[in-house]
Amino acid sequence: MGRPRTPLLDRERIGATALELIDEQGEFSVPQVARRLGVQTGSVYHHVDGRAGVVELVRERVSASIDTATLGLRPWDAALTAWARSYRAAFAAHPHAIPLLMTSPVRAPKVLRQYEQAVRLLLDTGFPMAEVMTVITALENLVLGSALDLAAPETMWELPPDSPGTENLARALAATGTGRADAAFELALDAFVNHCRVRLAPPAPHSGRPAHSGPAASADSRP
Amino acid sequence: MGRPRTPLLDRERIGATALELIDEQGEFSVPQVARRLGVQTGSVYHHVDGRAGVVELVRERVSASIDTATLGLRPWDAALTAWARSYRAAFAAHPHAIPLLMTSPVRAPKVLRQYEQAVRLLLDTGFPMAEVMTVITALENLVLGSALDLAAPETMWELPPDSPGTENLARALAATGTGRADAAFELALDAFVNHCRVRLAPPAPHSGRPAHSGPAASADSRP
Repeated sequence: MGRPRTPLLDRERIGATALELIDEQGEFSVPQVARRLGVQTGSVYHHVDGRAGVVELVRERVSASIDTATLGLRPWDAALTAWARSYRAAFAAHPHAIPLLMTSPVRAPKVLRQYEQAVRLLLDTGFPMAEVMTVITALENLVLGSALDLAAPETMWELPPDSPGTENLARALAATGTGRADAAFELALDAFVNHCRVRLAPPAPHSGRPAHSGPAASADSRP
Repeated sequence: MGRPRTPLLDRERIGATALELIDEQGEFSVPQVARRLGVQTGSVYHHVDGRAGVVELVRERVSASIDTATLGLRPWDAALTAWARSYRAAFAAHPHAIPLLMTSPVRAPKVLRQYEQAVRLLLDTGFPMAEVMTVITALENLVLGSALDLAAPETMWELPPDSPGTENLARALAATGTGRADAAFELALDAFVNHCRVRLAPPAPHSGRPAHSGPAASADSRP
């Protein structure tokens, strides 16, 4: 028997198979990946650093669809908005992977380099070093929450006919247009980016702006 | 043999068991629920309307921890903020249930009544009927994204030592305080509620405010 032309096992195929399993059943195990690839479980572990290593291959695969060129756009708010939309689209294609990837530490080099780009964008914009990861995390939470919502049915509330006590809900649902999930995402994104603009802007004198929405960046807060 | 004092099966115990399974393994099946309760699968179906019925029992159980009295607070922004915090805490206790509950239509009567309360709050505040569900959905997405994030490790980015090309990320991580997830949630919530305030406020004449952040509510937009 000749050697097969394509190797039975490589990191590419391990990541693809794990993501396939997650898409199908919401989870994966390394023995399942091995079974589907027709190899021993031990062979998989020759290529990756444990189960966590497989999770990082999945992360690289899902994140590969994020258009990182968006982070090079200017001004910064155009960059942040375009990155958020692309990020959401990439994860909405694999909603079952979201909880897994959100709760495992990020180690994939390509993904870490994407965070580096986002950090640089925010530092160049004037966000203080101590706030940068908070801003990125807050944006990710709304992006990933919205990506999960995009996997939900368009009709998300089903009222029994003539149910007493939900009349206003029924009217609000009837008045809502199509594209429920997209509209909610764009509203949240708009809110977030506007808030960042306010935090970066110098306070207008005597503007009566409440203290808690004052500027976050000051001249001496840059590293 | 006497009849057992507590009935072997009721909706309460079915919901509790399904949630237990979700907490443990991220998923549940009706046969698994039956097995754990020591009954036939068919017996479970006598008490609930299919698998979707069990999902609604899980939804009622998780949502029971949300303090709905928050929706009665005034002013409206205090109500929305307190509700969001309570909502996040309730779901953060069961992170594995989040994707399941976010992608199944809401039918549980108690939960529908909570939405009714939120809708009434927003209508009374002046949000137009056509926007109410979008506002609620956007808030839920950031709440549930943040609840998932609360289940993540405190150290969410692990940089290899001396990795080239991630220097700014390393500095930003070093400068970030503790309570990463809480800080990100509070930032996103603050952004969202501020945005709602701006949308509700009448436009200041000649304020130079960009058109896209203009008011959403006008006098004739109320039903």
